[in-house]
Amino acid sequence: MDRKNLERLRARYGNAKADEVFDPEFKKLNAALFDKPGQRRLPYGGISTFLDAPLKDDFSDLDIALIGVPMDLGVTNRPGARFGPRAVRAIERIGPYNHALKVAPSTMCRIADVGDVPFRGRFSLDEALEDIERYFKSAVRAGVKTLAVGGDHSISYPILKALGAERPVGMVHFDAHCDTGGEFDGSKFHHGGPFRLAVLDGVLDPERTIQIGIRGSAELLWEFSTDSGMTVVHIEEVAERGTEWVIAKAREVVGEGPVYVSFDVDGLDPAFAPGTGTPEAGGLTPREAQAILRGLKGLDIIGGDVVEVAPQYDANTTTAIAGAQMMFEILCLMALSPRK
Amino acid sequence: MDRKNLERLRARYGNAKADEVFDPEFKKLNAALFDKPGQRRLPYGGISTFLDAPLKDDFSDLDIALIGVPMDLGVTNRPGARFGPRAVRAIERIGPYNHALKVAPSTMCRIADVGDVPFRGRFSLDEALEDIERYFKSAVRAGVKTLAVGGDHSISYPILKALGAERPVGMVHFDAHCDTGGEFDGSKFHHGGPFRLAVLDGVLDPERTIQIGIRGSAELLWEFSTDSGMTVVHIEEVAERGTEWVIAKAREVVGEGPVYVSFDVDGLDPAFAPGTGTPEAGGLTPREAQAILRGLKGLDIIGGDVVEVAPQYDANTTTAIAGAQMMFEILCLMALSPRK
Amino acid sequence: MDRKNLERLRARYGNAKADEVFDPEFKKLNAALFDKPGQRRLPYGGISTFLDAPLKDDFSDLDIALIGVPMDLGVTNRPGARFGPRAVRAIERIGPYNHALKVAPSTMCRIADVGDVPFRGRFSLDEALEDIERYFKSAVRAGVKTLAVGGDHSISYPILKALGAERPVGMVHFDAHCDTGGEFDGSKFHHGGPFRLAVLDGVLDPERTIQIGIRGSAELLWEFSTDSGMTVVHIEEVAERGTEWVIAKAREVVGEGPVYVSFDVDGLDPAFAPGTGTPEAGGLTPREAQAILRGLKGLDIIGGDVVEVAPQYDANTTTAIAGAQMMFEILCLMALSPRK
Amino acid sequence: MDRKNLERLRARYGNAKADEVFDPEFKKLNAALFDKPGQRRLPYGGISTFLDAPLKDDFSDLDIALIGVPMDLGVTNRPGARFGPRAVRAIERIGPYNHALKVAPSTMCRIADVGDVPFRGRFSLDEALEDIERYFKSAVRAGVKTLAVGGDHSISYPILKALGAERPVGMVHFDAHCDTGGEFDGSKFHHGGPFRLAVLDGVLDPERTIQIGIRGSAELLWEFSTDSGMTVVHIEEVAERGTEWVIAKAREVVGEGPVYVSFDVDGLDPAFAPGTGTPEAGGLTPREAQAILRGLKGLDIIGGDVVEVAPQYDANTTTAIAGAQMMFEILCLMALSPRK
Amino acid sequence: MDRKNLERLRARYGNAKADEVFDPEFKKLNAALFDKPGQRRLPYGGISTFLDAPLKDDFSDLDIALIGVPMDLGVTNRPGARFGPRAVRAIERIGPYNHALKVAPSTMCRIADVGDVPFRGRFSLDEALEDIERYFKSAVRAGVKTLAVGGDHSISYPILKALGAERPVGMVHFDAHCDTGGEFDGSKFHHGGPFRLAVLDGVLDPERTIQIGIRGSAELLWEFSTDSGMTVVHIEEVAERGTEWVIAKAREVVGEGPVYVSFDVDGLDPAFAPGTGTPEAGGLTPREAQAILRGLKGLDIIGGDVVEVAPQYDANTTTAIAGAQMMFEILCLMALSPRK
Amino acid sequence: MDRKNLERLRARYGNAKADEVFDPEFKKLNAALFDKPGQRRLPYGGISTFLDAPLKDDFSDLDIALIGVPMDLGVTNRPGARFGPRAVRAIERIGPYNHALKVAPSTMCRIADVGDVPFRGRFSLDEALEDIERYFKSAVRAGVKTLAVGGDHSISYPILKALGAERPVGMVHFDAHCDTGGEFDGSKFHHGGPFRLAVLDGVLDPERTIQIGIRGSAELLWEFSTDSGMTVVHIEEVAERGTEWVIAKAREVVGEGPVYVSFDVDGLDPAFAPGTGTPEAGGLTPREAQAILRGLKGLDIIGGDVVEVAPQYDANTTTAIAGAQMMFEILCLMALSPRK
Repeated sequence: MDRKNLERLRARYGNAKADEVFDPEFKKLNAALFDKPGQRRLPYGGISTFLDAPLKDDFSDLDIALIGVPMDLGVTNRPGARFGPRAVRAIERIGPYNHALKVAPSTMCRIADVGDVPFRGRFSLDEALEDIERYFKSAVRAGVKTLAVGGDHSISYPILKALGAERPVGMVHFDAHCDTGGEFDGSKFHHGGPFRLAVLDGVLDPERTIQIGIRGSAELLWEFSTDSGMTVVHIEEVAERGTEWVIAKAREVVGEGPVYVSFDVDGLDPAFAPGTGTPEAGGLTPREAQAILRGLKGLDIIGGDVVEVAPQYDANTTTAIAGAQMMFEILCLMALSPRK
Repeated sequence: MDRKNLERLRARYGNAKADEVFDPEFKKLNAALFDKPGQRRLPYGGISTFLDAPLKDDFSDLDIALIGVPMDLGVTNRPGARFGPRAVRAIERIGPYNHALKVAPSTMCRIADVGDVPFRGRFSLDEALEDIERYFKSAVRAGVKTLAVGGDHSISYPILKALGAERPVGMVHFDAHCDTGGEFDGSKFHHGGPFRLAVLDGVLDPERTIQIGIRGSAELLWEFSTDSGMTVVHIEEVAERGTEWVIAKAREVVGEGPVYVSFDVDGLDPAFAPGTGTPEAGGLTPREAQAILRGLKGLDIIGGDVVEVAPQYDANTTTAIAGAQMMFEILCLMALSPRK
Repeated sequence: MDRKNLERLRARYGNAKADEVFDPEFKKLNAALFDKPGQRRLPYGGISTFLDAPLKDDFSDLDIALIGVPMDLGVTNRPGARFGPRAVRAIERIGPYNHALKVAPSTMCRIADVGDVPFRGRFSLDEALEDIERYFKSAVRAGVKTLAVGGDHSISYPILKALGAERPVGMVHFDAHCDTGGEFDGSKFHHGGPFRLAVLDGVLDPERTIQIGIRGSAELLWEFSTDSGMTVVHIEEVAERGTEWVIAKAREVVGEGPVYVSFDVDGLDPAFAPGTGTPEAGGLTPREAQAILRGLKGLDIIGGDVVEVAPQYDANTTTAIAGAQMMFEILCLMALSPRK
Repeated sequence: MDRKNLERLRARYGNAKADEVFDPEFKKLNAALFDKPGQRRLPYGGISTFLDAPLKDDFSDLDIALIGVPMDLGVTNRPGARFGPRAVRAIERIGPYNHALKVAPSTMCRIADVGDVPFRGRFSLDEALEDIERYFKSAVRAGVKTLAVGGDHSISYPILKALGAERPVGMVHFDAHCDTGGEFDGSKFHHGGPFRLAVLDGVLDPERTIQIGIRGSAELLWEFSTDSGMTVVHIEEVAERGTEWVIAKAREVVGEGPVYVSFDVDGLDPAFAPGTGTPEAGGLTPREAQAILRGLKGLDIIGGDVVEVAPQYDANTTTAIAGAQMMFEILCLMALSPRK
Repeated sequence: MDRKNLERLRARYGNAKADEVFDPEFKKLNAALFDKPGQRRLPYGGISTFLDAPLKDDFSDLDIALIGVPMDLGVTNRPGARFGPRAVRAIERIGPYNHALKVAPSTMCRIADVGDVPFRGRFSLDEALEDIERYFKSAVRAGVKTLAVGGDHSISYPILKALGAERPVGMVHFDAHCDTGGEFDGSKFHHGGPFRLAVLDGVLDPERTIQIGIRGSAELLWEFSTDSGMTVVHIEEVAERGTEWVIAKAREVVGEGPVYVSFDVDGLDPAFAPGTGTPEAGGLTPREAQAILRGLKGLDIIGGDVVEVAPQYDANTTTAIAGAQMMFEILCLMALSPRK
Repeated sequence: MDRKNLERLRARYGNAKADEVFDPEFKKLNAALFDKPGQRRLPYGGISTFLDAPLKDDFSDLDIALIGVPMDLGVTNRPGARFGPRAVRAIERIGPYNHALKVAPSTMCRIADVGDVPFRGRFSLDEALEDIERYFKSAVRAGVKTLAVGGDHSISYPILKALGAERPVGMVHFDAHCDTGGEFDGSKFHHGGPFRLAVLDGVLDPERTIQIGIRGSAELLWEFSTDSGMTVVHIEEVAERGTEWVIAKAREVVGEGPVYVSFDVDGLDPAFAPGTGTPEAGGLTPREAQAILRGLKGLDIIGGDVVEVAPQYDANTTTAIAGAQMMFEILCLMALSPRK
């Protein structure tokens, strides 16, 4: 043991004030993050919000709004994602700093949990999708970027209608399923088809869309993906070619324009994300998903969502933990986007 | 089937507007409860608060404050009640109307969830108890009644210090344990002794205190209860004599003065409340507890608490459901108290 | 120990063939129940059916059809009862003999599990209710009595439309909620209102309807029950007056005509039935429910249902066990009904 | 508040040494129970033993041996009770004092956890029953009373063979099932028939046997109970007549001689004891079971068992808690038995 | 966004009939798979069968029979796999199409769930193994290939006796354990030794046998594997050399002849398959297992099994999901086998 | 199938005595491990101890002591690790042989479970840390190596004070967090800072310390790690460079001197180890952890710990399984260490 070093350390840390930090960069960040009153609270204390963000009633003075969308009328099997926002809010201690991207979003943007989309009712899928679209349009009008927590995947369609109204957006999409199916059981608006609708509405550019982690039994329903020009990366391809290849592919596909990130937790393997409505064995690991997301740094991420967290099937809350972590990764990307 | 009646019903309800109510009393209550904007929301939507009460930052313009006390440093066995407030807030659909007492508290008082006691830290039981006392004293100063959710039972001591500072209060106490033990493992301030301390501090009147549902293995530690003049009703006595007898006894004991209601969920049988730190087989049923609580109608209830909800042991959330229900029953009693 | 008795017992049982039974009544029943090939199988073996009944494709040669109705689009809070039929089928070892009623239904009637109502789709509540009505009408036409497993409580409305089409029926209804609410969130057809609709349609006779176990927060929405002439027995009344009184009341209310039995598992306390969408603390015990049901012996029970089993919230399967047991009790009543 | 009383209390308790106790009886018991070194340990510390009893390798210097019997080869449905001893040992804080019986067994007898029956193997039910008999016979020879934790109910047969070898014993039996069935699937030695075998072997006196809580679907298999002269108290009879009646009946039936107490946790309702292999809705409450057990005070209890705890179905450990509590109640009865 | 493409897509999909598919191959498959009446049902509707296959009573007109073997008398630790078939049947939405192998088995073969092996009883392991052998021999006689779901791994021995009776078969075996141990606790027929017995009986060719994923504590018991000429691939070798190497090795070992695939879910890591009797940390991922299985395409797979699914330890049903998926992968291999 | 081989196998194994082993090395090990009386017991039988080691009261005649440290007063979020030792002891069938390292520790050293650290009380973190230090110092004085099971990570500080008192030790540390934070909420002694304290006390050599698997949100608090000269390997680096690189790095860092191994189960991904107080998505797999640990073979491992197992969040016991396995891997390393 280096005696000198020990003495130096004792001198520096031995009598330091509580929480004193010496690294200049860390010092600055700590000051920015924690000196605000009320921030240093117990993780299990106070009202639970997304990523522990402050609570806010409207979109004023905001850069990024974290929005709950507790609606699962579009599921085709196990319901429950209506409790997804509640489950993700209950997760403690995600963020505020991302060591891989070296970024603390809340020091760069004004971020708040603005609560949940106000729904007119609980029985009509069509009506709910209208409510979502209206709400996200008001965010767009206010110049606020949005990061949503579902809810089932059908919510991405009205969100894209709001975010892509001006010009179609590209998309990086993590999922076990392409979700580009057609009408099903008499409804176009289920969780298996939002991206077909978004393309046909002209708000999502299929040629700037990449779908990652695809597998499972519904392949026969997804011809629209390839036919429309989307890039479909099956899970086998991720395993064989690695995350670096996926990142390069994704950046190539989405290019320079505005990009939406949609993260369905069933893209992950059920071991990591059992709490979801249509689990499929053999999926992504959180490490792979994080690596790919971080590889998108610098793209113009204009919004995102994390969907299909169904806490009824999540005995150990691993799904909500993974979902909250992915939400934070997307938030970091949004904070790092070139234009705000 | 009475044809006339059917025609009358069809005429009355057949073309009624949505949610129209005809009973005059119900009409009035519905109007009072639900016409406020934002109230008619999904039970799984929005930020979770105690009993779905509005969220508030301070004690101004309030009659009753619902307060979380996420602190379990006083437990002697299984920890976890620090997550009690979060668990109780997550329960949907308790209230707003009590059909047995025929009362809707939020139409009678100004009630809000004011969040959690702000703690200086997470390691010191003594310090935490000081923080609790300080916070509840500020409520008292503001003229606001308090209804707390623990946390372990050690929190009742500082609360009583705040609420009984002016004059000692009586107490109706539901529990498996008397919680009048002495110093234990070097600490006076554990969850097994708050009421001994409160008596010795002169803030709790033992002769106006009744303890209901007592059982379990620690009887040998509770001589203080009987020695000080408390009335101890073991669970066997509840079973033999019935709830009517318990109610009469309780009213006789606490008399006319100010009364505090402390509800430890381990007073219930573990089938109803498994999620707690020191479960004891053979306890109260929620029906018995509700009957006794409702029998206290008209007493001068100046505050209350529901403690020891530990969601880690509550796979089906029955404990949190029962705890939230008891919280609502106490709130009704507080709303019905003669003086506000 | 009586030496003679021991010798007699040894003579009788010591060399008896496996499973030999000496009591004449038991002998007869055992022969009727178990001599059929295939009956003596492992409880965990073979395809799971309701109460281990044989599986059948249609209503021919049947007296009573056990029918799954996996539909929960009518819930107002926690979804999941669409998996109720699957959960109830998975319960082992309920029946075939009821020791209290001294009856083995399968020796008296031809009973089969006919599978689930075939639904056109999974998104439309209105459409689903039509599908249910159509299916139960075909059972009625075939002269088959029905015993359904939901699904949420909205399914009782179309079932009653089928069963009461000829003449209105009476009802014994176990529930925490009256389920006679009006339009809600734009829909008449939710799980909080089936019995208002059934009365207005003239298929349910309110004056021959009794609702047992009522409690909870929605009392203000149920004026229709009392206004229409239904008898509402709150849980407090069950506790105070006892099951004998409830039985007498129920028999008095429903009288001689055809009776439907609807059992919502949330009528039970959440300790016994946590796996349900709208649990309410302080409910019936299974013992009380069984006692009341058995007290209906001899009434003309023309159909029944067990609804709101949501296995996602039923960690120990107690809800499914209780639900299956109540289903068996109703089946016994149906077998004992005067006219088949 | 009585000022004088407060002063007296402050004088007495204010400066008392830690844990000082003033009540003479309590003082004596506390001294007897806790002054032994090592006793005052954390409930979650150290090796888990039954009721926190000391661990011992043999029967020397013992009055009562607590014995695990981890064997479930006799089950007819859900296995898992082989882990029953481990689950019951893991329960904290049962005893050492029984406030209702006013007794602390460990101050009256020498009690130890002697570990588990050593089995030759894990595949043969017949062999396992021999191993159990041999082991309990060695306890009898050592003059030690036994209190066993199963394992499934088939273990009671070899235990009774050991304990009743000298003279037949009477029995108080808590269960949903009579367990007096005959050969089943080619085996006499399953968990549905131990008491038929014990009677035929002359080690159990049927006329001094009472079975309490009986219900469920296998009634047709239990003619042996009534035919042999056992007293069968169905659960409905407990509900109607009350525990006082059951106690009187039980004392009348078993009379003065030696009595064995066998407690199958499925005698309790599944809400209280879901973790068991053959649950039956509508059972005893722990309060009823405790009341009946305590009513046996003074009988000559020469041994007992708690069986069928299967922790795989016991998400909140309520079954293990109830089982451990019943074990303690039986231990108290054994300590209070007239002859040791 | 390519305007032309959008117009083309709108023209093609905008007014398409529900579920219309344009890709010729997909069109054909969809027609083959879903046009049959009754196929398009809710995943949570109807009687649960393996992989949603039709139910059948016998082996007539069948190519592949899916068979449940609910027997776990051979376990050496945690029981429960007797409920494995029920758990796997309850999994929704596996298949009907395998995107990696581009195959839909049910379009190529006649497949049915024929229910469970009829057992004479529930207590005798030896007898149960005879029942299994007899049943599978009848399948062989009927010219039907079998795919079994256990039950514990001891079932593979009688299955191999049936399938290898004519000539010994090769085997690809996924497991944490070699299962080639000798007599244990007096029984040869436990779940730790089926493959030693099969070799000694001449029905399994050790030199054409590969065991993949081996690890855990019982290595010392498995000398038979290497001594007999089996190829043992420890999990460390899978990690180091990759799945491509394993596939090549497996194909080299089993060669051209008939091959049996035995999949013990404890071959997977406990994160993916906690619900099993003898879990071992550090196992295969489902992705690896799927990759290896798919690499066996074209081999002459004459039968297979998925064993050791014990739902009691599977809170989130991930084990049953993984087991059902592996079952589907094996089914695809069987459909693709050169000779049927 | 090779006929000769089959005959040889039949000759060798066909009539072998039960459990006979022919491989000379395996024969020797089996003899050493299992011939001791009492060793061949059921995994679910007997008192549960760490890795099934014999129980012992003191340090005499011991080489390695397995020690429980049931203390979690240092946690900053979810408590529960106080039940970690109980959970790890309950895991069956880990060891006794490590196939990868080809070692059976109990044949090389005298190993025992010596129970838990005797704590003076349950409320004071400072006092508990003193108790731990005192106890481990007595082990050091007795010349016994220690392998501890926590408890939260704060326990490593007093252990290191005991083990490093003579000379500072190096460390291989698996964790999501560096645990080198400073004073927090007024306490230096929390689970986020043990290694800063150990360095400043001169008992841990930072330059011989490597931290593996680091990630999560608290990076800003860990400047001490890098500033003091520790080698920090973030999880991303493990993923990119592989375990071989990590092993080489670790061996380079710790060099020749004494090394402590500290394994925080939150170093693993929450899918593998959900049962812990501060889970972080995206962690190590058990396979990676095992590979790295085994790569440390031959180092002078003088002690170790496995910490932060909190069974309250571990529905399927995967965390306890992984923790027990890592404990065994460390034990093997200790047995293989050059000097004992």
